[in-house]
Amino acid sequence: MKVSELAERAGVSVATIKYYIREGLLPPPPLKTGRTMGYYDRAYLERLIAIRKLREEHFLPIRVIRTILEEHGDQPLTRLEATVLARVDDRVTRRLAPARRPALGREELLARYHLRPDELELLEAMGLTDDLELMEALQRAEGEGLSRDRFPLEGLGHYVELLGELARREVRLFLKHAAAHVPEGELEGLAERAVELTEPILNLLRKRLILREIKRLTGAKGPREES
Amino acid sequence: MKVSELAERAGVSVATIKYYIREGLLPPPPLKTGRTMGYYDRAYLERLIAIRKLREEHFLPIRVIRTILEEHGDQPLTRLEATVLARVDDRVTRRLAPARRPALGREELLARYHLRPDELELLEAMGLTDDLELMEALQRAEGEGLSRDRFPLEGLGHYVELLGELARREVRLFLKHAAAHVPEGELEGLAERAVELTEPILNLLRKRLILREIKRLTGAKGPREES
Repeated sequence: MKVSELAERAGVSVATIKYYIREGLLPPPPLKTGRTMGYYDRAYLERLIAIRKLREEHFLPIRVIRTILEEHGDQPLTRLEATVLARVDDRVTRRLAPARRPALGREELLARYHLRPDELELLEAMGLTDDLELMEALQRAEGEGLSRDRFPLEGLGHYVELLGELARREVRLFLKHAAAHVPEGELEGLAERAVELTEPILNLLRKRLILREIKRLTGAKGPREES
Repeated sequence: MKVSELAERAGVSVATIKYYIREGLLPPPPLKTGRTMGYYDRAYLERLIAIRKLREEHFLPIRVIRTILEEHGDQPLTRLEATVLARVDDRVTRRLAPARRPALGREELLARYHLRPDELELLEAMGLTDDLELMEALQRAEGEGLSRDRFPLEGLGHYVELLGELARREVRLFLKHAAAHVPEGELEGLAERAVELTEPILNLLRKRLILREIKRLTGAKGPREES
């Protein structure tokens, strides 16, 4: 791909690509075959599209985008990170695991949470039925008007996907920074509290981002004609 | 692309592709040029990769993946969805907007939240400095050990990206289902409460997904050699 094709496919200008290269978000053209010709491959295009989205959809500054791109991969843990993880595993697991309760059988689950069999199957497939705390939270939301006939349980998939991706990155970031900066004596305690400490930040950000999306949609013109 | 190439590039088997087609997750081969040759384009490959990730990384069942793929696009609102949005906009905005407080100047922000100038710039660039509630939540987390020298503010970018994507889908899903199923009289009240009602579900899921990620990492063998 030439730089002009690359720009067109990614939906940015050539000047923008050069700017990203200067800022270190993109490597220099991978293969220079002549004085003015650089060839870009598909991975390059994908990285460029990811950057464009982080800027245009999420309004993130360059510095933050750089951090996000660094964390994106799924590299194995370093030895030090693995050591940190082994050290905090037990206490974090105890803190985050669902409260121990008598396991309910299928019939009990169906009856207690007013589930249809296909809804129970769906929750089972997502590995969520052994978590009675979650089942109760779902039921409370249902009782308050977010009923499953109006808002089907499939919608939980969005949370599992995106919070799952967030969880991956949060664990990696914690391990990386903890391995480098947190004194041994503080490690377990901090790991144990980290989820609770960040929960209010997460909940506030979610509110503001929902608001931002509403403003974006109400600012946008021309609803699509009903088909 | 032939189906064998497609399978190889997406990292799945040909049988899996056929299964996805049968389940309606993928359209039938877009161009059939002979008795056994189907040609697949790049969009097809991207959809296939997205499906593979939803299954293998997030363990989502087919039914849920179907729902997620349907919501993925950024289509304009239908007329009915736009009407719902216009009706709930005011009350939702009042509920989700940061509490009104006297705006702080740059110097006051730096002093009160112990920010470095580059940190303030970063928060400004993400549009987060007018939200004193959030600033205070950040400060509390810092005071409890998640200090910014250990866990740099750039990490907030992950939340903004992924909760931003979640916010987009949540707003769309709410509008879609509310437009179809919620009686007019209940609409504003439900919209206003929806974020709070789902907050406990979100927080519980996050905990379990962090736990799932920890289990995945501790189950995985062989930490990378320190380089």
